[in-house]
Formats: sequence, C-alpha cells, structure tokens
Amino acid sequence: MTAHQRNLSASIDPVKLDRLAEVAVRVGLQLQPGQDLLLTAPAVALPLVRRIAEHAYKAGAGLVSTFLSDEEITLARFRYGHDNSFDRAAGWLYEGMAKAFAANTARLAIVGDNPMLLSGEDPDAEDVAVAKLADAIFAASRVDQDGAVAAWDKHNAVLRERTQWLNEQRFHALHYSGPGTDLTIGLADGHEWEGGASTAKNGITCNANIPTEEVFTTPHCRRVSGHVVSSKPLSYQGTLIANIAVKFEEGRIVDAKASRGEEVLKKVLDTDEGAARLGEVALVPHSSPISKSGLLFFNTLFDENAASHIALGQCYSKCFVDGGNLTPQQIAAQGGNQSLIHIDWMIGSAETDIDGLHTDGRRVPVFRKGEWA
Amino acid sequence: MTAHQRNLSASIDPVKLDRLAEVAVRVGLQLQPGQDLLLTAPAVALPLVRRIAEHAYKAGAGLVSTFLSDEEITLARFRYGHDNSFDRAAGWLYEGMAKAFAANTARLAIVGDNPMLLSGEDPDAEDVAVAKLADAIFAASRVDQDGAVAAWDKHNAVLRERTQWLNEQRFHALHYSGPGTDLTIGLADGHEWEGGASTAKNGITCNANIPTEEVFTTPHCRRVSGHVVSSKPLSYQGTLIANIAVKFEEGRIVDAKASRGEEVLKKVLDTDEGAARLGEVALVPHSSPISKSGLLFFNTLFDENAASHIALGQCYSKCFVDGGNLTPQQIAAQGGNQSLIHIDWMIGSAETDIDGLHTDGRRVPVFRKGEWA
Repeated sequence: MTAHQRNLSASIDPVKLDRLAEVAVRVGLQLQPGQDLLLTAPAVALPLVRRIAEHAYKAGAGLVSTFLSDEEITLARFRYGHDNSFDRAAGWLYEGMAKAFAANTARLAIVGDNPMLLSGEDPDAEDVAVAKLADAIFAASRVDQDGAVAAWDKHNAVLRERTQWLNEQRFHALHYSGPGTDLTIGLADGHEWEGGASTAKNGITCNANIPTEEVFTTPHCRRVSGHVVSSKPLSYQGTLIANIAVKFEEGRIVDAKASRGEEVLKKVLDTDEGAARLGEVALVPHSSPISKSGLLFFNTLFDENAASHIALGQCYSKCFVDGGNLTPQQIAAQGGNQSLIHIDWMIGSAETDIDGLHTDGRRVPVFRKGEWA
Repeated sequence: MTAHQRNLSASIDPVKLDRLAEVAVRVGLQLQPGQDLLLTAPAVALPLVRRIAEHAYKAGAGLVSTFLSDEEITLARFRYGHDNSFDRAAGWLYEGMAKAFAANTARLAIVGDNPMLLSGEDPDAEDVAVAKLADAIFAASRVDQDGAVAAWDKHNAVLRERTQWLNEQRFHALHYSGPGTDLTIGLADGHEWEGGASTAKNGITCNANIPTEEVFTTPHCRRVSGHVVSSKPLSYQGTLIANIAVKFEEGRIVDAKASRGEEVLKKVLDTDEGAARLGEVALVPHSSPISKSGLLFFNTLFDENAASHIALGQCYSKCFVDGGNLTPQQIAAQGGNQSLIHIDWMIGSAETDIDGLHTDGRRVPVFRKGEWA
C-alpha cells in the first residue's frame, strides 16, 4: 500500500467541504428540479462526491450517476497493457453519455490528481500538506466563509460589471507594460467579453468553472506585437516551462525563449499555423484569492485564475457578438485564431499596467499595478 | 467524517489481496487476450480493483472499464431524493453495458457492503475487525496459500469428480436426516449436477463465483416431503430469519415457523405459487473453508458456501440435461420450479446424513456427518 492510498479526508474541514459541494450544485450547476446529474471525479475525491450527491438530491435531482476514475488503474494500463490495448475505448459509454446530455442531464467534472508527489512522505507531513491544499482550494472557491452561495452571487455581479464595461468600451487593442513586457494585443472585430456565470445551451445560467476570476475575450490573431514575459511557470504535459520570453510580430511569435522547457515550448509553437498566435486574452486582478495563496496548483483551472493570462491557439467562438451564428470563415475573418492547441500562460503580476486603446488613439486605464483601475 | 470513510486497506495483507486479484482474473474470468473487462465494485474495494486491473492488463486485456458504486450516495438518494427521483434509471448506461457484453466484454462484479456496522467503533478495533474479515475472505477464496491458481485447478477437479459421480448415479431423490430434519427431496427428471468451473456462452470455461464450494441441481418441485430445520440464520433484505422449521407435502411448504422473522418468512412464501416450493438443492461439506471460519458473512455468495442448502423459488434451467434447449413448459413438466424469488437457506451441519435414493429402492450414502461419504 503506498502512502497515497491513505484516506485523505481526515485532515479536510468537513464544513467547508460541504459548502464547496453546495456551491457546485447551486452555483456551478444551478441544478433544476427533476434534472439528472452525471458526475465524474477521481476516486480520491469520494468524500466531496458524496456531499455533492446529497446537495443534488436536496435540490430535486432526478438521478445522480457518478463515475469515479483512478490514476493507478490508468497507470496499470500504461505499465502492463499490451500494444493492442491502446486503440480501445469504451465507445458504448461515451455514446451513452452523449445520449444523457442530449436529454438535459447536467454534467459536473471534479478534476484533480492523486497527490502522487506526496507518496513516500511520512503520514503526518502528508496530512498537513493535504489540509493546506484543501484550505487553498476552499479559499480559491470562495467557500471559506459563511453564506458562500450569496458570496458567489456578489462575485458574479462584480464580474458582470467588468464585462459590461469592457463591452461598452469596445477597445481596439490592449497595451500591456511591466518589467520585460511591452505588448499590444489587438482585439478581434466584434469581440465580446465573458466572465462569471454564463447561460448554457439549455437556457440555464450557471458557473461553468469553479473557481473563476477571469474576464476574457478573443484577441485579433494578426494584430499582436511587442514583447512579453511569463509571470508564472507553465506546466505542460508534465514539463515545466519557466520564464517564457517571446516577441510577436503581426500576431505571430517570431522569437521564443524559456529558462526551462524551451525545447518543449518551441515544439508546441510548431504544432500548426495557429499555435504561435493568440486565441484568448484574460484579465485577472493580482488580488484574486488564488494569487494571494501564493501557490502554483499545476492545474490550469486554478492557475489560470491567479493572474492575467493569454492563451496560444484556438479561440472561443462564444467570445464574439452573436458568436453562435458565425461560420468558422467569419470568425477567422474577424481575427479569431484556429489551432489544435489552447494553452494558457500567465503574464500578469503586481507590476502589470494595462491600457485600453481606442481606434481614435484614446487610452483608457484598465489595470494599474495588477489591479482594476 | 464517519469511521467507515477511513481507508481500510492498511490492515489488509497486500500479498493475499494480490493473489485474490490474480485468481479473479485467471480462474474466475479466464480472461482472454484482447478481451475487454467491465468491472463493478463498491468504492471501498478500490485497492482490490487496482490489483485486478493490473492482472487483467498483464493477462492481455483490451480495455478495463471500472464502475465504482458507493452506499453513501445511494443512501443520499433515499434520504433526500424527491419522489419523482425514484422512477429514474440510467437506461443509457445499462443499454451500453449490454452492447459491451454482446461484444464479448468479460464481466466481473465485486459484491460487498461498507462495513457500516463498524462505524462509530474506535479505529483500532475497526482495523482488527477488518483484518479478520479480510483473512476470512482470503481463506474462503483459497488464496491464503502460495500457488492459489493451482489450488483452484485442484479444487475445480474435485468438484468435477463430485458432479460426474452424481450425474452417473442419477438419483431419483435425496433423503436428509439430522436433528429436526427428516426430508426427502425428489430430483427433477433429467436433472444435471453443476459445480465449480462452468462454460459460459462465449465458450470460455471459468468460475462464475469466487468463492464456490457447492455442487447443485434442480429438485422436483412436486416431490418434496417431510420436515427440515435451518442450520444457520438467513439474512433477507435486512431481516434476520432464524431457526426456520418447515413441513413439505407434495413439494409445497404447508407449515412454516421461525424463532425470529417468522412474519417476513411467511410473506416470502406467499410471493407467488412457486415461492413455497424448491428451485435448487446444493451440497457443501461441513469442512468447507467458509464453514470452518465459523463466521456468518450476511452475504449469500459466502454464506451459501458454508453448508448444504436448499433454495425457495426459481430453478436454474442450466441444471438439466440439454437445459439450454428446453422450453419453460418442458422444464416445468420435468419438475423445474418457477417463481419471482430465489432464496437460499442452510440446512447442512456436522450432523447431516444424506442418502441418494434410486427408483428401485437402493440407498447410496452421499453425506455422513456433514461430509462426503
């Protein structure tokens, strides 16, 4: 038995765990009476899964179906599976899930890894580390206080104010300045800022991601120029890429360096034509709870909410006015990028200033010293 | 956090756990190279599930899909689910599984409950109890020794000898005697004894149940007469039924008593016409490992292998010569019973004698003092 098979729940605050479950159901899913729920999670998250099932049934769920995965079983496949095992997938399962979603089943994915790095550590140190990680997750998810659902309502209102203001401004570009950074990011024609709660295809307004701190839109993939450095390392498929410094010309990265993982970075940029161009620009204040934790979670959903960031690769079609009705050709013509990849990396810090640029030359302060101006 | 959320694996012998996984894959499933495996288990059995996945991939499995269930989540549905939740089922999942089985996916179900009765006990006592239960499961599953796969080959050979002898004898009836018991059980016309490894529809010979100690066949549902008492209590849907004493006339129970759970027993017997008649008769020596453990597992798969038993209700069509080709009408004509229920209960003990009766009046000793004669 390795150390990470130990039950990690003993050191986790049950009250906050229950609040996180309540927020997941009432804010994240906005689960409707009678709606079924399909929940996927790593088996180590079972204590949270149980609380979520309870809150889902309390909210009037039809059927809650849980699918627990386990990294050790995945590892067994890679270690011991015969070559002919790797072209097999449970097609019947994915087809079935698609049927369930088509019938308005809600979907909740708990994403996280076994704390494998801790295996072999002594149990007491592990308990302390797990408790610390759990507290950071609770703080990031805004459930470290009473009235968490109300706190999320307020948080969503703040994010909505930001996106409304940005959508009224209709900036032509953003200009970033800070140590090592002098970057102008053009925004796509007809871009729209998103953030916080959004409305799903079934008409339910919910928070697709918990935590979430960002407001984000689509940059113009042919109008980015200047220099930018990363403010936090990027963990990409097991490789840490640190101190990225790139130069953009006409939207494309023409020079890329990194103090660590530079080879991997260059391979990523060579994936396809769009891999060296931007598909997303996101604003996150330096004072966000995740940033304040000072932790790097090695999990994009958390780390991308720690600082303002940009993403290489594919853009989101929803970040356009009337985006759902645009063809891929129209999106590309308006500056939307296309690529097989979408990789976020952090460029914001306590020293980041951002201005909004209008076509007539007016500059409007957006961020000063990493905070909303 | 309740006590049964603690990880129970710490007190379980990892070598025997691994052997049980190996026996499940190599003996229970006889998993074929390239064959997919669908595994269902309670989440608390994750340490065993991991070992099974490993052995399955080592045996050349295609894809191992695991589905972990959790009693607390089921309980949340019963506690908090709205009335309209209870007519919902994940039809898409069961349809998908049926597709997988039709494509020759092997099926392994680990059945067992959370040791809920232990919750609230102090952790040390729980560790001792879990370790004791695990050792009993290992012994019952014949993995408490080296060479467990070879031990199963030998065990299957012994069971095959027994069924071959019984099938050669073609007894007309069995006569049971012991304290409180004087019972004649007619055997169905064209009955066939089964036991140990059997051949599945896909042609693979495997052990459908682990553990298994019984040889069993179909009684004649209109030719049972006399008195019989139970030798162990029966746990039926949460009710313990103890010291059953029944009288049969022409195959039907005409009088039934129990020192505990008599009301429930009588309701069971009233389920339908076949519920008060026998559908199975099974022989298990008193020296079986499960019997020797002296434990009542409150799990039919284990408890039915502790002693000779009979079952009320539905018979198995496979326990007839050429059973696969018989119509329900033919099976009924040959003495096979039909019912919505199938409930095993133990009648064998160290004092049970069983004779085989031939139509010409010859008596052949089958069991003496609870052991094969």
